Amino acid sequence: MILVKLGGSVITDKSQYQALHEEVLVRLCKEISDSGKDVVVVHGAGSFGHIVAHDNRLADGFKYESQINALATVSRDVRQLNLMVIDAMISAGISPVSLPPSACVVMRDKEIVEIDFDRIRSYLEMGISPVMFGDVALDELQGFSICSGDQIMEALARELVPERVIFVSDVDGIMDREPSEPGAKLVDCIGPSDLDNMSFHVRVKDVTGGIKKKLSAMMKMAGPDGACMIINGRVPGRLEAALRGDEVVGTKVELD
Amino acid sequence: MILVKLGGSVITDKSQYQALHEEVLVRLCKEISDSGKDVVVVHGAGSFGHIVAHDNRLADGFKYESQINALATVSRDVRQLNLMVIDAMISAGISPVSLPPSACVVMRDKEIVEIDFDRIRSYLEMGISPVMFGDVALDELQGFSICSGDQIMEALARELVPERVIFVSDVDGIMDREPSEPGAKLVDCIGPSDLDNMSFHVRVKDVTGGIKKKLSAMMKMAGPDGACMIINGRVPGRLEAALRGDEVVGTKVELD
Repeated sequence: MILVKLGGSVITDKSQYQALHEEVLVRLCKEISDSGKDVVVVHGAGSFGHIVAHDNRLADGFKYESQINALATVSRDVRQLNLMVIDAMISAGISPVSLPPSACVVMRDKEIVEIDFDRIRSYLEMGISPVMFGDVALDELQGFSICSGDQIMEALARELVPERVIFVSDVDGIMDREPSEPGAKLVDCIGPSDLDNMSFHVRVKDVTGGIKKKLSAMMKMAGPDGACMIINGRVPGRLEAALRGDEVVGTKVELD
Repeated sequence: MILVKLGGSVITDKSQYQALHEEVLVRLCKEISDSGKDVVVVHGAGSFGHIVAHDNRLADGFKYESQINALATVSRDVRQLNLMVIDAMISAGISPVSLPPSACVVMRDKEIVEIDFDRIRSYLEMGISPVMFGDVALDELQGFSICSGDQIMEALARELVPERVIFVSDVDGIMDREPSEPGAKLVDCIGPSDLDNMSFHVRVKDVTGGIKKKLSAMMKMAGPDGACMIINGRVPGRLEAALRGDEVVGTKVELD
């Protein structure tokens, strides 16, 4: 099984409320189907979730009454995006079932403490692709919080030990300096020893908590045998190549 | 808290694939909102789920490969209906969060053996209305099965002990004989002792397993203190009256 994150920045236009990149989404789902691999898909909330969630401080938990209506709206909006992802998957010949974090994740102080992994395994065993996504979820300490696609990726990678972990983004990968600087180059491979030496730059827009935190998380997802990659989903064929295990433009994050 | 079932026959046209009775749905949600009551809403799958589920024998569990695609389709279709219900609730000023059975129910031999009741209570405590619906769910014995709205109602009524249980249907209630017969009258109230004496007729279209089974289930839902009612959602005002506890045309099912 391969764990695939369809970043909010690649399947939606994050600058506009509820703007889908439909042609990209449809192609990416076709690439998943053509690869013939079993996948678990996690997608970001992108412009369907971030704007209302941010304006109403949903990540901070239950602070004031009007957040409740915002919570319902965000939860509704990410389900609309999810339905579009599910539609694109079914059209591509994949059989998905969506598992919203609000229904099957428990958080505590903004961290995931519970996901029903057995449920995910049961679906996989029947040839069904579980689909999860950034959502509002219950939080034992603060009432609710945001359960991001990246947090779900970490939890699933740790527990399900996928053959490979692929982050589909809207950039080629990690650059060795600010991409606008002359001579900026794509970093093919990063290991833990590189973390302190480089001034690389991730132009992955849904990064929360900075580049190092994101890379450390990716290194854990890579595990001792697996690989964790960032690739550009805007370029046709890269996701399919990465799924098949072919050489592909992108950044591989390794545990050395 | 009041437990409300929006029957598939009242919010959809069960004779046509994916046909919504939008004006009815919008009005019913407004009636819920206007009543000022806290609710848990369960809705049927109606024409969004039954047709494909039936044609592919999803209720019988995993028997052959092509069911998997049908399962994904049904699960997708009921989520489309659910999104419309959620939209109508939000427009009416309610704050719902949907909890699909495929993500939070476990069945065994076609019966529900697990629902995350704590999750439902946590949402209710924050003023959020949990919404569940007829869906395909995992089954420990047969891989998957259909988790009907009525099964969810039974489980929630037993565990959450609602103030009242209301089934919103497309008929006034239970008639004392075939409704087309001359002199057929609505039965106002039914208790266990009536079960063997009457030849009443339920014209609730999503009945599975016959009238007596349905009524026995409703008697259990009524509980020693509560009431369980069938009302006609096609008639404006009845749901709101029932929610408020006013006298209303319908059939009350009691534990004597």
